Amino acid sequence: MLRTHEAGSLRLTDVDSTVTLAGWVDRRRDHGGVAFIDLRDASGIVQVVVREQDADLLKNETVVKVTGTVSARPEGNANPALPTGEIEIVDTTVEVLSEAAPLPFQVSDHAEDAGQVGEETRLKYRYLDLRRSGPQKAIRLRSEANRAARKVLEDHRFVEIETPTMTRSTPEGARDFLVPARLRPGNWYALPQSPQLFKQLLQVAGMERYYQIARCYRDEDFRADRQPEFTQLDIEASFVEQDDIIALGEDILQAIWSLIDVEIPRPIRRMTYREAMERYGSDKPDLRFDIELTDLTAYFADTPFRVFTAPYVGAVVYPGGAKLARRTLDGWQEWAKQRGAKGLAYVLIQEDGTLTGPVAKNISEAEREGLAAAVGAQPGDAVFFAADKPKAARALLGAARNEIAAREGLIDENSWSFVWIVDAPMFEPAADAVASGDVAVGEGAWTAVHHAFTSPKPEFLDTFDTDPGEALAYAYDIVCNGNEIGGGSIRIHRRDVQERVFRVMGISQEEAQEKFGFLLEAFKFGAPPHGGIAFGWDRVVSLLAGAESIREVIAFPKSGGGYDPLTDAPSQITAQQRAEAGVDFVPEDEDAESAVAGA
Amino acid sequence: MLRTHEAGSLRLTDVDSTVTLAGWVDRRRDHGGVAFIDLRDASGIVQVVVREQDADLLKNETVVKVTGTVSARPEGNANPALPTGEIEIVDTTVEVLSEAAPLPFQVSDHAEDAGQVGEETRLKYRYLDLRRSGPQKAIRLRSEANRAARKVLEDHRFVEIETPTMTRSTPEGARDFLVPARLRPGNWYALPQSPQLFKQLLQVAGMERYYQIARCYRDEDFRADRQPEFTQLDIEASFVEQDDIIALGEDILQAIWSLIDVEIPRPIRRMTYREAMERYGSDKPDLRFDIELTDLTAYFADTPFRVFTAPYVGAVVYPGGAKLARRTLDGWQEWAKQRGAKGLAYVLIQEDGTLTGPVAKNISEAEREGLAAAVGAQPGDAVFFAADKPKAARALLGAARNEIAAREGLIDENSWSFVWIVDAPMFEPAADAVASGDVAVGEGAWTAVHHAFTSPKPEFLDTFDTDPGEALAYAYDIVCNGNEIGGGSIRIHRRDVQERVFRVMGISQEEAQEKFGFLLEAFKFGAPPHGGIAFGWDRVVSLLAGAESIREVIAFPKSGGGYDPLTDAPSQITAQQRAEAGVDFVPEDEDAESAVAGA
Repeated sequence: MLRTHEAGSLRLTDVDSTVTLAGWVDRRRDHGGVAFIDLRDASGIVQVVVREQDADLLKNETVVKVTGTVSARPEGNANPALPTGEIEIVDTTVEVLSEAAPLPFQVSDHAEDAGQVGEETRLKYRYLDLRRSGPQKAIRLRSEANRAARKVLEDHRFVEIETPTMTRSTPEGARDFLVPARLRPGNWYALPQSPQLFKQLLQVAGMERYYQIARCYRDEDFRADRQPEFTQLDIEASFVEQDDIIALGEDILQAIWSLIDVEIPRPIRRMTYREAMERYGSDKPDLRFDIELTDLTAYFADTPFRVFTAPYVGAVVYPGGAKLARRTLDGWQEWAKQRGAKGLAYVLIQEDGTLTGPVAKNISEAEREGLAAAVGAQPGDAVFFAADKPKAARALLGAARNEIAAREGLIDENSWSFVWIVDAPMFEPAADAVASGDVAVGEGAWTAVHHAFTSPKPEFLDTFDTDPGEALAYAYDIVCNGNEIGGGSIRIHRRDVQERVFRVMGISQEEAQEKFGFLLEAFKFGAPPHGGIAFGWDRVVSLLAGAESIREVIAFPKSGGGYDPLTDAPSQITAQQRAEAGVDFVPEDEDAESAVAGA
Repeated sequence: MLRTHEAGSLRLTDVDSTVTLAGWVDRRRDHGGVAFIDLRDASGIVQVVVREQDADLLKNETVVKVTGTVSARPEGNANPALPTGEIEIVDTTVEVLSEAAPLPFQVSDHAEDAGQVGEETRLKYRYLDLRRSGPQKAIRLRSEANRAARKVLEDHRFVEIETPTMTRSTPEGARDFLVPARLRPGNWYALPQSPQLFKQLLQVAGMERYYQIARCYRDEDFRADRQPEFTQLDIEASFVEQDDIIALGEDILQAIWSLIDVEIPRPIRRMTYREAMERYGSDKPDLRFDIELTDLTAYFADTPFRVFTAPYVGAVVYPGGAKLARRTLDGWQEWAKQRGAKGLAYVLIQEDGTLTGPVAKNISEAEREGLAAAVGAQPGDAVFFAADKPKAARALLGAARNEIAAREGLIDENSWSFVWIVDAPMFEPAADAVASGDVAVGEGAWTAVHHAFTSPKPEFLDTFDTDPGEALAYAYDIVCNGNEIGGGSIRIHRRDVQERVFRVMGISQEEAQEKFGFLLEAFKFGAPPHGGIAFGWDRVVSLLAGAESIREVIAFPKSGGGYDPLTDAPSQITAQQRAEAGVDFVPEDEDAESAVAGA
């Protein structure tokens, strides 16, 4: 090693030792003939006293090697904020290992602009960004989370198995990234959206307990907080039931949250999908605050207000919302319109109990009188309504409850709410899936809510294809603070059941054979019942790290549109690369013509 | 769980317990009214006694659930070869969970055709192949190796960091696999050949200790035992010297070899590249046997034999080779020609000390008399010669020594030889790299033996570009039983040195900027001295598992040409996929024209 000690490790007990340190100049303070350098390495910071003539070269972020003697700081000069604050390094000789040009932004936590750098710049100079204590800590926490999760899985005798990332295109709800195969011109590999099919095959293979921290790929339109490549903690086991996977999942969550000294109470609450939708308007409810939806459909059954003669009318209470200015309430209308609603009906409950706002005069006297009690509102509150088909109305109210909580500071940012959402529907109308931005797999009226490999609950095994809208899936999602951080299911392990599911989804026998033939074939030779779960690892770690975005816990994330400001990827390729890749291969026989059908 | 116990766990102490088991029918023996089933799960095998009428459905590899009572086997019926051999399950009820169609090959270790299945068939039905004890064990060992290596790295406080796999095309000695970027039509990502640049950037980022079990991609021609995607244990650290990385590497090797109860003596021997080439004709010498090369250039300085008037003449002794039939010796000529040599000169030393064979009469009397002593041969041995440029001749003799050892059984298959090869040349003539199948990076007469980011040893820092043929790299390869299983180096951390290396390799400033500009830029802002190593993890585990091929330790490997017989990947894509991928994008402005220059 080029150093004998790590900077952050030195203490009073090291006084009089001769040490050699190596690290970065975090900052420098000149002080009449001498300069004080904060020398930083991964372990921390120590103060180094250097002669003024040595200090001239020591710009911020220069890499230096310093040899000197550990000395107690003079009386009154100790810095209790620093673990090394009682000592400093004196009698130093300094060697510059690597100079630093003027920085695009400051790195030191002491810098005035720390934390105020634009994200594009941070990503372009990610190697500087990661020197800052916050970003560096997030990446280190991720490593700790990996370790803690693996420990749990190893204790449960799970086997870590790598699955291929150059594989066959098998739509799972998003577009595949494709890779031309030079050695088989006209053919392409696909990067996997998940190891789903391979982990099921590993169960057919008798591995019984599989896990992998797996890279996955989805060619999506990068809405919000998505990355083209992302990571999931992927788990699958044989001869298990829902309770087994849930218990294992809780072991993992408990282990990783303990890294930030949070004890997750066990068992984690379970809620049916139906209850979550009815009470919270979401399949990923944030339970850190109390607001719930009230179903007012019956209440307004005979309403004179035409808007409320809808299949579903519901409401959420905005605590203290009667104080909102007209302009703010208009803003809520805009907010609702951006979510595809016509607007957001509301009433304000004045301190004297009278109702105001545009809706108040449209509803009947009786409706006005009973409303506060019906929704559990107090004088001073507002009530927001939605009237539409149940799914759309509840989604709007669910979003409104989150927004109210955020605006009113109703969320305790130090609290954690975990909940398992179980008994989700097996299928949803394909139109709903497309509307929410997914690719509907198959040509049918129905598509899978989870995915095509999810088993129906045993009681729907006979009827899921005759009555797809009623069938419940043997599936479970884990939600943390309103984020879906993992999901899984007991899988189909019978070829006949799998084929029936494909049929409901409108996947023709020919297409099923072409896309999933190898799975159907595998099921012929003794497939064990099996199930599993996958955690969205980027999201899990970002919650753990208290990060705003998953990008904070990815060493080199892409920015919008899948662009990497650091390496400038994706980029153009040479004519030779293109020619060699076989992208423009024209087959000589007719059979292969579909290979270039798009050319 | 669908079972209460694992099959392989039951013992005499469990007698009288009621158990429910689930697993596969490994084999069945009918026996007058009852049938004996070997029930197999991942834990092992147990004997289950079932009524004959229940047994009819139980074809091999059917998945069953069995409830019954553990019973001691009748006197004299115990099977000491089986851990569960003292008990059996009686009074059983059997439920078929999943039927098995007739198998393409038998799975049970008891099957007659076990192990005699062609590889293409094994890979097509890999989920059956992996049920067999040998293949399953290899995959489980790999998981154990991961765990043991991570333990060492965590103990050394290394941080596990994932690096991108959709990145910029940066040639490192092979072709890149490419991925079209739908959202930036005309642009492509590349799958990384290694995390090299990112792990160096992580050092610039101050992470100090990085590791990753990383998927890597090389679009090669799949000679021999290559896979398009492969795995390396990738390590990099700051402020280190060669000895630090070597010590860490030995800690890892020691930990994983202890999984198979092999104690690797420390420190592992080190040998210079030069010594390895001179004594063993290889930079990855197999030291499990004694044969060495003898340099006879001086010995034959005045030879009358024209063939030996070469820049280098060398020999290896074939112990007992004088007994070889003429036909066998002719076969060696063919062997040499297939390796690009003109042939393989030899003499046979008869029991009376006379030399025979075609070469014997061409060399001088004095040369004949002194030869046995010069090469350390005994009566009964043969001596094989090579005369050529040193590199080519030594390579032939090195290959001959391996071949002799293999044919004569001189290798103790239970022994292990580890050796570090250090002080390799920094550069080799580009023509040599191309001849050995690599892509020469850059347009220069020289290319890097390791890679472009390897530092010269300090004593060549001033001269490596004026005298590239003499410069030694600050690099180290670890060789096990003649296989290079890992390699690393201290890297360049100075922009000026990196630019000089690029210049030697004929990489223009413009090209350097385009391909590696982000690394050169990073070096401007205080890059620490750093170095690392990468282990070829598939190879390491295959050695550990005693496997013939790395395919044995990959769950779903590709066969020749990058083809997967299981999923039939790569495959054709739809016209819509092609259109969406943006492969055929034609830019509207001239600046972007090079994007489709190959079209």
